[in-house]
Formats: sequence, structure tokens, C-alpha cells
Amino acid sequence: MELTVYLAGQIHDDWREKVKELAKQRELSIHFTGPQTNHERSDNIGEEILGKQPDQLFRDDAASSINNFRTQVLLNKADAVIALFGENYKQWNTAMDASAALQLRKPLILVRPESLIHPLKELSNQANVTVETIEQAIEVLSYLYE
Amino acid sequence: MELTVYLAGQIHDDWREKVKELAKQRELSIHFTGPQTNHERSDNIGEEILGKQPDQLFRDDAASSINNFRTQVLLNKADAVIALFGENYKQWNTAMDASAALQLRKPLILVRPESLIHPLKELSNQANVTVETIEQAIEVLSYLYE
Amino acid sequence: MELTVYLAGQIHDDWREKVKELAKQRELSIHFTGPQTNHERSDNIGEEILGKQPDQLFRDDAASSINNFRTQVLLNKADAVIALFGENYKQWNTAMDASAALQLRKPLILVRPESLIHPLKELSNQANVTVETIEQAIEVLSYLYE
Amino acid sequence: MELTVYLAGQIHDDWREKVKELAKQRELSIHFTGPQTNHERSDNIGEEILGKQPDQLFRDDAASSINNFRTQVLLNKADAVIALFGENYKQWNTAMDASAALQLRKPLILVRPESLIHPLKELSNQANVTVETIEQAIEVLSYLYE
Amino acid sequence: MELTVYLAGQIHDDWREKVKELAKQRELSIHFTGPQTNHERSDNIGEEILGKQPDQLFRDDAASSINNFRTQVLLNKADAVIALFGENYKQWNTAMDASAALQLRKPLILVRPESLIHPLKELSNQANVTVETIEQAIEVLSYLYE
Amino acid sequence: MELTVYLAGQIHDDWREKVKELAKQRELSIHFTGPQTNHERSDNIGEEILGKQPDQLFRDDAASSINNFRTQVLLNKADAVIALFGENYKQWNTAMDASAALQLRKPLILVRPESLIHPLKELSNQANVTVETIEQAIEVLSYLYE
Amino acid sequence: MELTVYLAGQIHDDWREKVKELAKQRELSIHFTGPQTNHERSDNIGEEILGKQPDQLFRDDAASSINNFRTQVLLNKADAVIALFGENYKQWNTAMDASAALQLRKPLILVRPESLIHPLKELSNQANVTVETIEQAIEVLSYLYE
Amino acid sequence: MELTVYLAGQIHDDWREKVKELAKQRELSIHFTGPQTNHERSDNIGEEILGKQPDQLFRDDAASSINNFRTQVLLNKADAVIALFGENYKQWNTAMDASAALQLRKPLILVRPESLIHPLKELSNQANVTVETIEQAIEVLSYLYE
Repeated sequence: MELTVYLAGQIHDDWREKVKELAKQRELSIHFTGPQTNHERSDNIGEEILGKQPDQLFRDDAASSINNFRTQVLLNKADAVIALFGENYKQWNTAMDASAALQLRKPLILVRPESLIHPLKELSNQANVTVETIEQAIEVLSYLYE
Repeated sequence: MELTVYLAGQIHDDWREKVKELAKQRELSIHFTGPQTNHERSDNIGEEILGKQPDQLFRDDAASSINNFRTQVLLNKADAVIALFGENYKQWNTAMDASAALQLRKPLILVRPESLIHPLKELSNQANVTVETIEQAIEVLSYLYE
Repeated sequence: MELTVYLAGQIHDDWREKVKELAKQRELSIHFTGPQTNHERSDNIGEEILGKQPDQLFRDDAASSINNFRTQVLLNKADAVIALFGENYKQWNTAMDASAALQLRKPLILVRPESLIHPLKELSNQANVTVETIEQAIEVLSYLYE
Repeated sequence: MELTVYLAGQIHDDWREKVKELAKQRELSIHFTGPQTNHERSDNIGEEILGKQPDQLFRDDAASSINNFRTQVLLNKADAVIALFGENYKQWNTAMDASAALQLRKPLILVRPESLIHPLKELSNQANVTVETIEQAIEVLSYLYE
Repeated sequence: MELTVYLAGQIHDDWREKVKELAKQRELSIHFTGPQTNHERSDNIGEEILGKQPDQLFRDDAASSINNFRTQVLLNKADAVIALFGENYKQWNTAMDASAALQLRKPLILVRPESLIHPLKELSNQANVTVETIEQAIEVLSYLYE
Repeated sequence: MELTVYLAGQIHDDWREKVKELAKQRELSIHFTGPQTNHERSDNIGEEILGKQPDQLFRDDAASSINNFRTQVLLNKADAVIALFGENYKQWNTAMDASAALQLRKPLILVRPESLIHPLKELSNQANVTVETIEQAIEVLSYLYE
Repeated sequence: MELTVYLAGQIHDDWREKVKELAKQRELSIHFTGPQTNHERSDNIGEEILGKQPDQLFRDDAASSINNFRTQVLLNKADAVIALFGENYKQWNTAMDASAALQLRKPLILVRPESLIHPLKELSNQANVTVETIEQAIEVLSYLYE
Repeated sequence: MELTVYLAGQIHDDWREKVKELAKQRELSIHFTGPQTNHERSDNIGEEILGKQPDQLFRDDAASSINNFRTQVLLNKADAVIALFGENYKQWNTAMDASAALQLRKPLILVRPESLIHPLKELSNQANVTVETIEQAIEVLSYLYE
């Protein structure tokens, strides 16, 4: 059984590579997708395709329109979603993607550190499963194949 | 024309009262709903109904289950949603509610200060309208009745 | 705010009357609906309308077709669902109605005694809120109006 | 024509192996999926991934969150569902999965012994087909290929 | 509880009046809707609004476009549908409306004489309830109010 | 581009073979599905799987439950539907399948003789395309590949 | 029966007033909604609420975000839609609203002059009814009440 | 990752060939679909399959029924849509297809010249991304594979 899993969440470290590595070790037939992980490219993509924008607001809006296009295409094709929250950054697009997944009936695994229990409590309560580490998330995916 | 508008967002000041006051001044036939705004009550509601929980994690989960029940009932009945982000707090449930509104085809007005343009850019790009003040949000609602 | 709440569950005692009484005491503007609570009428309704059936199987199927018609009409009109499980009986139609509510995005309160924690664990995990008493369910509904 | 069929129901005997064996004998191109059938693993999976829980309630909830994740991923991918009820156990998750299948427009075959006609009458009335044996369920699937 | 019920089916006798009369006798709060029952008006409505059409094919298509507009508006607003088949006529639009109701999750009561059991067997199997007389259909509706 | 087309309609002649032959001649990559075309098998399938039924009504209901299971599985997988009406028979299941296809957003080609223009006018008006011959239906499918 | 009808289309003459006047003459219980018909206000609304924009592109985008908010709220509440095309202007938002109505299963009446038959042929083919005058559109609405 | 992209828009020049060529140069695994691009064939297809029609209105309607059949089949299978508007022609079917894509949750790239900013402002505001050249549209698609 081939599955596609979208990896929503922050792009400031290489957690997606760890996910892929762990899935490979367990020989799970999972194709992982996710947002642009080159942060600079992600922020600049609007101006790189659409040209110079009037100011930061429009620069950000242009970039996000293309990032949202990517997310929507990939989320539509996903069988499940992992959303990871780290200790830093606002990560509102992670919350947005996780909530969209829930409304689209895509099963959701939430990964968040213990320190974020309180602010993420409503989202955690709606997620299918909440874990604290990537290893646990992979164990949940692995359970699909037992 | 009677409309119902859900007011998603932080519960640390009285912005919802200001919204209602401004709508009343303009005589808009709008019924406003929203989350529990008594912060303590919102955090304690799980234990107040379900009894003492084993620790903070389960206390938060119990509270959020009842808060999410309320949000889902009210969101289902809403014709439109206003989601307000302030400068403080994580506000991930606000992002979650705003994203749910979008997926449920509920038109969305996002209110956020200029300082949050960058972290909210993907959500702002998906919202119908993004404004900076409550007054502007009311002007958008008021435009429905012209 | 007027709400309609469907009361799914066993029809062997008068728990629905208790729900209505408690809601009245708190002056909640809730209209409650539910299945036929006259057990004999519920079991006989097929033959009473469609005439004598060949045997018990077809007698049951005839009755359930009319009971399901009723449930579907009322569930479609409900803003939320309370599903109550008691200690006795199979109660598979309660589980069926609760699950239908979840798939139709109707918020669900599950009421079940402590003794049923294990066999109801998957349904409880999907419900918005799980409580043990009718009083608690009413407190959850009451929270909608605070 | 390749089909995927989810096998909902009790995990206390090897009925799924019999289904697969019979489908193989008839050379039906069907991929069967289903819940975790190792009962102990199914009950322990919450603590095995998430760690020790405070008590039996939370232990069960943790396990069911991961079991529900699995069911939702696999149910989404299924072209049809077989739900089998045996003479023992509460089997409310079977009723829940069967009802979810119906709401998601997944055609449903119900397998139940004659002794359960009465308590399963509402679910049976909604199922596409109700049979008493696994052999009959396979004949229904086989009919798809004639 | 106010309900709206769409009365699909042949327009060659006054069965809809009988339905309304019986519902009135039982004091059911039901608003009945249905197709144009003036047969000539129904067949001519295309040319009466759109003007002379080239031939019978286009005359029929023009009429049916306006009849379908009416049916879709009223079906969308219905809480349930009664579809009645008589012994004569093709009645394919009745079958079409009944099937549309089923796909739109509108509960369906099928009324058909014994003589039509065989040709209506697939539709009858999908309907919530199948009866032979208008009186029985009213009894099913009446059961909603017990 | 591989497509799947469901062939709804009467099973009294070999029109489906003609469709397949014509598609083969034009080398269209289309996989055709449809109902059981062995009429006797279709009428007997209920009793053949479920055993002797009490009378003709229940015999027909048993058969149609299995035929409907087949139709629903195959309709869900179809990219388009051809519904053919001949001069004879009631063909209400054809109208039912065609209408279901429309509600499920499956594009529909209606094939009917000139003599049936009037009784099929509402269904024809909703179909994407109405033609009179199988050759024309194939030309429409063929147009997809130009 | 109260209905709400959205009047999509150009805002350069007073055709909506004529629609309302004709409906009033016939005493139809219809509440009409529509876009902002003050053209200047419609084009300026972005800057009037959000402030001065960098250039014409962003000025137009700001205005359309608020116009689209209005349209989505009102379209969601409509039971049917009339879309009128005149001889002048691009009118792509009219086509956009008409197509949205169709996808949301809102019955659609298209009003267009004879001169636009060819360019509107695909949209006309999907509309429930196509007419040439406002009087004809009102006759179609009036037919709902016969 | 294989994707299918529907190319909506005018058929008066070879812009689709340019899209395919550019995608090929970048080795994107994208299968492109679109309407009939032989303009004469597109306008004549109704009469070519259905025979001589009474006049231009019916000739156009016949053609558009078959063109709409094609569009619906292909749009259903698309992962994303590019809609291109040129400086000439009415292009209302392009607007109709773009709007249908949005309602069906198919991500949309709008391509339009600077001269059309004003008349396309509402559609542009709803599209995921708006660009001015085919090269930019390809860059957006290419970004999916980074």
C-alpha cells in the first residue's frame, strides 16, 4: 500500500529529512511532500516570479499566493498529514494547514514539544493523534502497515 | 437581512464588545457569536464539568474538548467569520478557526496589526479581506447592507 | 439563539425527560428531538403501517426502515447530538447514529458510564466531549449560552 | 479492475484470513485492509507509542486515537466495506465504522448471525447487503466481477 | 416542528390533494411542495415563456428546463420527499427526482402499487420506506411527530 | 489518458458489446463497466446468495440489494456514464442511475430513441449530451481524445 | 414560501429595480440581493476601507476582495440566481458568479440578448433556463408559485 | 509526482503548445489537458454528431453540450487549472471554467495581460496566483517540484 503524507510545519531545521530517513529505515512505502523548505526561496518566490512588489506587505502576499498554491495541490493529494510545531516562530501557517487537513478529512498527526501543550490544546484535541517526537509520528505511520 | 458572524480570536481584551457596539451604532442586523471570553472559565471548563484531571495535559485537553464543541456548533451556524490576531500570545486556535471557516466556505475577514504581516501572510492571502482595525472590519460588514 | 439537539440512545428509561427538565430549569432555548421512545410502538411500527410481515427478520426490517426515516429527517435538522449509552442492551443503532452525526459534522456529546470506557473507546475518542452523566451533558450545552 | 475492501469488525478470531483465502480461491483482484488484529497490540498501542498513561481511561483513549487514525486512512482508500458482527463483545467500533462508511458513500456489506437480527436491524436496513456468512460476503464481492 | 415535503410523481390525478387533506386531518405541521400539476401548463411552459420552438423536441426541452428549475429550487428546500408511481405512464422524471433526493440525503418514501414491485425493485431498495398507499405515507410522516 | 465509463441501461440486448467493439475500433483507452447483463442471474442473485425468500417482493428486494451494491461500487469509480433507454420496459433503474450520476457530478450521455423524447424530456435536459444512437455516444467519447 | 434570489450581472443600468418592481406587481414573496450597484462605490471600496493602495492593480484587488466577500455571503444564502449579461463590458465577474452558483447547486436563470448567443453558449448550456428579457426571468420565478 | 493540469482559455493561438514545450524543457511530470483547440471543430461538433440543427441558437447549444461534457470529464481529473485570458474575444467560458475550478477546490493560476486587470479583478482576487505570462505560470508549476 502506497501512501502520501504531507509534512506541514516550520522550515527552519531538517526535521523532514529525519522523517524520511526513519521511514526509509522501516521500509514504509510512503511518499512525503511538504512546503518549500528553502526559507529564502519561500519568502522571495513572489518577487522572483511576479517581479518587484511595492512594499513588504505585497511582497509577502505575492510569496504566500504561490506557497498556498503549492500547499493546496499537495494537500489535495495527501492520504494523511503530519503537522510539526517547534518552540519558536509564530507558525500560523502550520495551524492553518493542520486545520484545513481536518476539514478535508485528512487524518492528522500533531507533533509538538511539551512546552506547547497549553497554546495548542484546541488543535491537539481535534488532531487524530498528538505526539512529542518525530520518532513517535513514524511509529504511528508504521502502525498502518502492521 | 439577518446575519450571524462568529468572532474568532484572542479573549484577553474586550474587542468583541467594541465590535458589537460599532455594529449597533450602524444598526446592522447582525447576531455576533464567539468563544467563551472569560479566560479562567475557558481554561477551567474541563475540570469544572468533567472533574479533576490527572495533570495539566489532560486538564487542557478536557477544557479544549468543550471549547471545540462550542466553536463547532457556532461556526456551523455562522454566515461569516471575523478572526482577530493581537500582538501577543500564540493564538493557534484563532488560526485553526479561521482555516476551518475557509474550508467550510464561510467568508472570512482577518484583522491583524501591521507587525504581523509576515507571519500571517499565508492566512491573509486566503482570507477574503484583511484589515488592521475593528472599525475597518465593521465597514466591510456594513457594506453588505448598502 | 435557538438550537435543536437530537437525543440518540436507548429508549428503556426516561433519560430524555430528565434532559428536557434540566434544560428547562436552566432556561436553555433548545428544542430536543429523538427516536420513538415507546419501545413497543418502535418495534411494531413496520407491521402497523405496512401490514403483517413474513417473519421476525422482515418485521424488524420494516420497523427499522421507518425508524431510520425518522432519524434521518431529525438528524439533518439537528445542530448537535447527544448519544447516551446505558449498561444494558446492544445499542448498535446508538453507535450508528453517533457515527453518522460525526460524519455529517454535527458536534457530538457522548454520555456513558465508567463501566463502558473500554468498549466505547474509539467512539469516545471521536466524540467532541465524553461525559458520564446527563447533568454534565446539560452543563456542556449550557456553556454554549454563556 | 482492482478494488480495495476494508474489513471492519471484531478481531477475536481469524475471519479476515478466511475472507482473503476465499477471495484468492476465486482469483478476485481485491486488496483487503482492516484494523490491527493483534488484540493486545491494539489495546497497548497508545502506551507503546505515547508512554505510560495516568489510568485505564487515558490508556484506552491513547490507544483508540491511533487505532482511529489507522481506520480513517484505510477507510478513505476503500471502495467498499465489509462489517462483521459476532455473537460476543460490544463491537461498537464496528457499528461506528459501518455507519461512517455509509455516510462516506462507501458500499457496505453487513455480516451478522441470525441471533443478532433484532439489535442490528437499523444498521442492517441501511447497509447495501446483509448476509450471515463470510462465504456469502465473498459471493457478493465476486458478483462485481461477473 | 415545521417540515417541508416535496411530492414527486405523476400529475394525472389529484393524489397531492389527498395527501394534503390527510395531513390536515392529523394536524401535521407540514408544508407540501411539488411540480406544476396542470399538465397542459407543464407541457406548454417552455413556449409560453420562451416563445415558439422549432419542433416538438425543442418544445419539450424548453418546458423541461423550466420544470427542472422549479424542481431543483423546491427539492433543495425539502426535508423529505414522497415519490409516487402509478400504473400508467413512463414516470422517468419521478425516478429521476427520487434518485436525486437520495443522493442529496433527503429521506425518501416511495409509494407504488403492488403491480410495480419488480420494475421498481432497485429504487425501492434504496428508498427509506416503500408503501402502497397515500394513507401509509401519511402514517410514516405522522410518526415523525409522535 | 485512461477513462472508466459506466454503461447504465437495459440488459435485454447486446448494446454494451457494440459499445465496446466501437471503442476498440477507435482505439479509445476506455474501461467499460456496467450492471449484470445476464437477466436471469440479475433477477435470481438475491436468492442465489441469501437463500429462498418468502415471496416475490422479498425475492426482488434481495436481488436489488446486491445489484445496487454492484452499481454503487462501479459508479463511484466511473469518470462518465452512458445511460441507454430502449423502447420497451420500465427502465426505472436506468433513470435512477442516470440521476445519481448527475448528482455525483459524473458527466452523463443519454441515449434514447426519438419516440421517447417526451417522457425523457426532464432527464434529457439535465444530461450533458443526449443522442439517439450508440455510434453517436462513441463519437462523444472519442471527442475527449482529440 | 419565502425565497431569496441573487441578481448577478452588470451594474450599469437599473435592471435590478425593474426585476423588483415586476416581482412586486405579481406579489412574489422573493427577497432580492445583489452586488453593490453604485459603480463608483464598488470600484473605490478597497481604498475607502483599506486606504490608499500603491497603484491601480492593488486598488482593484482591494476593491474586489470586499466585493467578493459580499458576493460570497449573499450567494450562500440564495435559493436561486439570475445572471444578466448586457451587450457591453467584459462581465467576467458575472460569468464567475453564475458558474459558482452552478457548482454550489443553486438553480440559475441566464438573461442575455440574442446577440450574445454564441459567446455565452457553454454557460447557457449549463444554466437551468436561458431567457432574453427580465420579464421572462420573472415569469420563470413566478412559475415556482403556481 | 505525476500531475494533471487543465488548460482553460481561448483557442485562437498556440499558447497550449508553448506551455507543453516549456514544461518539457524543465522536465516536469505534468500531463496537460484542455478543450478542443480546433476552433471550427469545436463550433461544429454539435451538428457533426447530432446532425443539422434548426438554427444558430440550437447549433451552438448542441456544440456546447459536447464541449461541456469534455470539460467536465477533464476538469474532474485535474490537480490544478491554468486559465488564460487574451486581449480579444468574450472568453466567458474561460471565466466559467476558472470559477468551476475554484468551487471544486482545484488550485487555479490565472494568466492575463496588464490591460485586463480591471475587468478580471474579482476573478483574479479569487485565483490562487495571477501572472501575466505563460513563462510565469510554468515557474509556478515548477515550484511544486522543488
